[in-house]
Amino acid sequence: MTTDFDATRRAFDLPEGVIYLDGNSLGPLPRGVAERLARTVADEWGRMLITGWNRAGWIGLPARVGDRIARLVGAEPGSVVMGDTLSVKVYQALASALDMNPGRRVILSDTGNFPSDLYIADGLARSLGPDIRLKLAEPEALAAALDDSVAVLLVTEVDYRTGRRHDMAALTARAQELGVLTVWDLAHSAGAFPVGLAACNADFAVGCTYKYLNGGPGAPAFIYVAPRHQDRARPALSGWMGHEAPFAFDLDYRPAPGVERMRVGTPPVLHLAALDAALDVWDGVDMDDLRARSLELGDLFVRLVEADCPDLILATPRDHARRGSQVSFRHPQGYAIMQALIAEGVIGDFRAPDILRFGLTPLYVGLDDVRRAAAVLARVTADRLWDRPEFRRPAGRAVT
Amino acid sequence: MTTDFDATRRAFDLPEGVIYLDGNSLGPLPRGVAERLARTVADEWGRMLITGWNRAGWIGLPARVGDRIARLVGAEPGSVVMGDTLSVKVYQALASALDMNPGRRVILSDTGNFPSDLYIADGLARSLGPDIRLKLAEPEALAAALDDSVAVLLVTEVDYRTGRRHDMAALTARAQELGVLTVWDLAHSAGAFPVGLAACNADFAVGCTYKYLNGGPGAPAFIYVAPRHQDRARPALSGWMGHEAPFAFDLDYRPAPGVERMRVGTPPVLHLAALDAALDVWDGVDMDDLRARSLELGDLFVRLVEADCPDLILATPRDHARRGSQVSFRHPQGYAIMQALIAEGVIGDFRAPDILRFGLTPLYVGLDDVRRAAAVLARVTADRLWDRPEFRRPAGRAVT
Repeated sequence: MTTDFDATRRAFDLPEGVIYLDGNSLGPLPRGVAERLARTVADEWGRMLITGWNRAGWIGLPARVGDRIARLVGAEPGSVVMGDTLSVKVYQALASALDMNPGRRVILSDTGNFPSDLYIADGLARSLGPDIRLKLAEPEALAAALDDSVAVLLVTEVDYRTGRRHDMAALTARAQELGVLTVWDLAHSAGAFPVGLAACNADFAVGCTYKYLNGGPGAPAFIYVAPRHQDRARPALSGWMGHEAPFAFDLDYRPAPGVERMRVGTPPVLHLAALDAALDVWDGVDMDDLRARSLELGDLFVRLVEADCPDLILATPRDHARRGSQVSFRHPQGYAIMQALIAEGVIGDFRAPDILRFGLTPLYVGLDDVRRAAAVLARVTADRLWDRPEFRRPAGRAVT
Repeated sequence: MTTDFDATRRAFDLPEGVIYLDGNSLGPLPRGVAERLARTVADEWGRMLITGWNRAGWIGLPARVGDRIARLVGAEPGSVVMGDTLSVKVYQALASALDMNPGRRVILSDTGNFPSDLYIADGLARSLGPDIRLKLAEPEALAAALDDSVAVLLVTEVDYRTGRRHDMAALTARAQELGVLTVWDLAHSAGAFPVGLAACNADFAVGCTYKYLNGGPGAPAFIYVAPRHQDRARPALSGWMGHEAPFAFDLDYRPAPGVERMRVGTPPVLHLAALDAALDVWDGVDMDDLRARSLELGDLFVRLVEADCPDLILATPRDHARRGSQVSFRHPQGYAIMQALIAEGVIGDFRAPDILRFGLTPLYVGLDDVRRAAAVLARVTADRLWDRPEFRRPAGRAVT
């Protein structure tokens, strides 16, 4: 193992006494971010004003940061570009893929997909009219549901609740045998383990950067388009930043060459600067080392929790090949248990109806953290701390 | 006049010696932003981690900031929400409006619209199939081009090149007589002068916040939906943040009540925090005072430039009712002249093919700045500084 995980841990500014097992939802603050943002604001925006677009290179940030992410997801240089939110990028990838497969009417996805992907796909299908429809299969039945009526297969590689991982290579190959294009959502993959977009021959992929990539709350999304498709993909969201010559201000749209055509509007410079700084931590990280350590952390956590908390039911596959970088358990009092854990300094999160999620991210989580977290969880469940009124679930739209 | 423009000027951190006449492209840095961002990063993201969504109120930022902007554009409380880029919001508003006017096939806009709006409209029309098409009229012929085949009128109120302003009340009324829905792009209106969305009975509006609202490079966009339409508008980009209960993670999409259904993905917290701080400067500003001062600045600049630079041709209407808060001139050497001005500390910008733009924003530009800028422009043109090789226009995608 060549990766120095003590060094990566020191690169994060974690609160004293907290064990943070929620990097699968929001990564913690990398140390270089505050300073980079302060510089971007004071020295670039403040001093350069409008000239920052050229002089500070803001206009090129979506491609430069995209290339840094490309390395982490096994993508070709020049095949990833940043912008918008993951939901918007799902829409754009789906619309582009549908357009490249005319005559086919089905978007196929699975019930384990993140709901926003399904909402977006359904909204797109409704916009396009009664000919296009979204079809859902159970995750295990996804390969069998593929046929030549399917235009696009939309899959989130890792289930946001259970951590169950699809086989990207096999599903992509099967889809392509049937003439189906693939859109892979890497929300819980990018930065979680080695991803092989090029090796798997994926068509499109999208992902977010505020989870395992630690870009901060609301950090921008990315989109990947396989080089073989880039010059025929129609961006659907055809904004000026994806134009061949945005500053010619022509009345007609001509897409830029390559993946830059997937850019839409003015890039979020502050978020891109924060993300760019956050990505520095990856410079010395070998993704295979990361994966090995992540599995070691996961196996240990599963063993300890199963030994000490018999009421908690493992929701994550035991098989290494079938899991991401989180471990989840089910419990009917899951919400309250998680609140009790957070009150004790162990931060994971809860997903309805009964899932406790624990992200195990070797960049800043070690074996000792896992042991301590399991011990706190054992105490919370042994003492039935979930019965306390302060841990009860609130109503409404609050984030849980 | 109750507004203290000396106080608003002190609220900006402008570089020494610079006269900044490009706030119509990128507003300068308000003083409170750096500190607010530093707090959001260190105290919220760094300390609260995932709990910041609730404890720091991140989840509610799009609506809270939206309400602050609502006041500046004459919109009802609860009718504006933040997110995405202006191009994405144009798409969403157009798609929603088309959906509310079934059977009609035309999106009508004008050749003075910002190209990205036209690219987005054209891309949407192509996605929807041959039935839907984008039709363009000359700006002066827009009202006459309205008829009952038009589903949606898409207008940018102020022309980004010339500063020519459409009559929102009259165009909206005429459109509505014919059953046409309106989408107003307020890119060069919000923060530039009093806008009366409710008073004009507008249907939809969108805008950006990095120009006259000083939110910083890539600050998020806003969308307005008239209260009478909110509960029947289909968001088209139907992401989880616009769901009635995003954290229920239902498989089916049910739009949130009100304008919040227009939210799509995870909000850009850092940009929203910066923007929220930037909006503080508006707290003591009366929009009628702003307008009066803006016109005073514009009239003075036009008079001085026309007196001293006979080669420059005014591109902005003289009539107050027909202009925004910028003044533009045409010159065949416009690009090089602007570079020479910038080298002299007078920052405006250039728009192809021959437009010099000067944003006159009373928050931080005074009568003396306008006099000095006009004097520099007179010297640049008298001395033909545009002939110097360093001011020649580069090729490629650079921002101009």
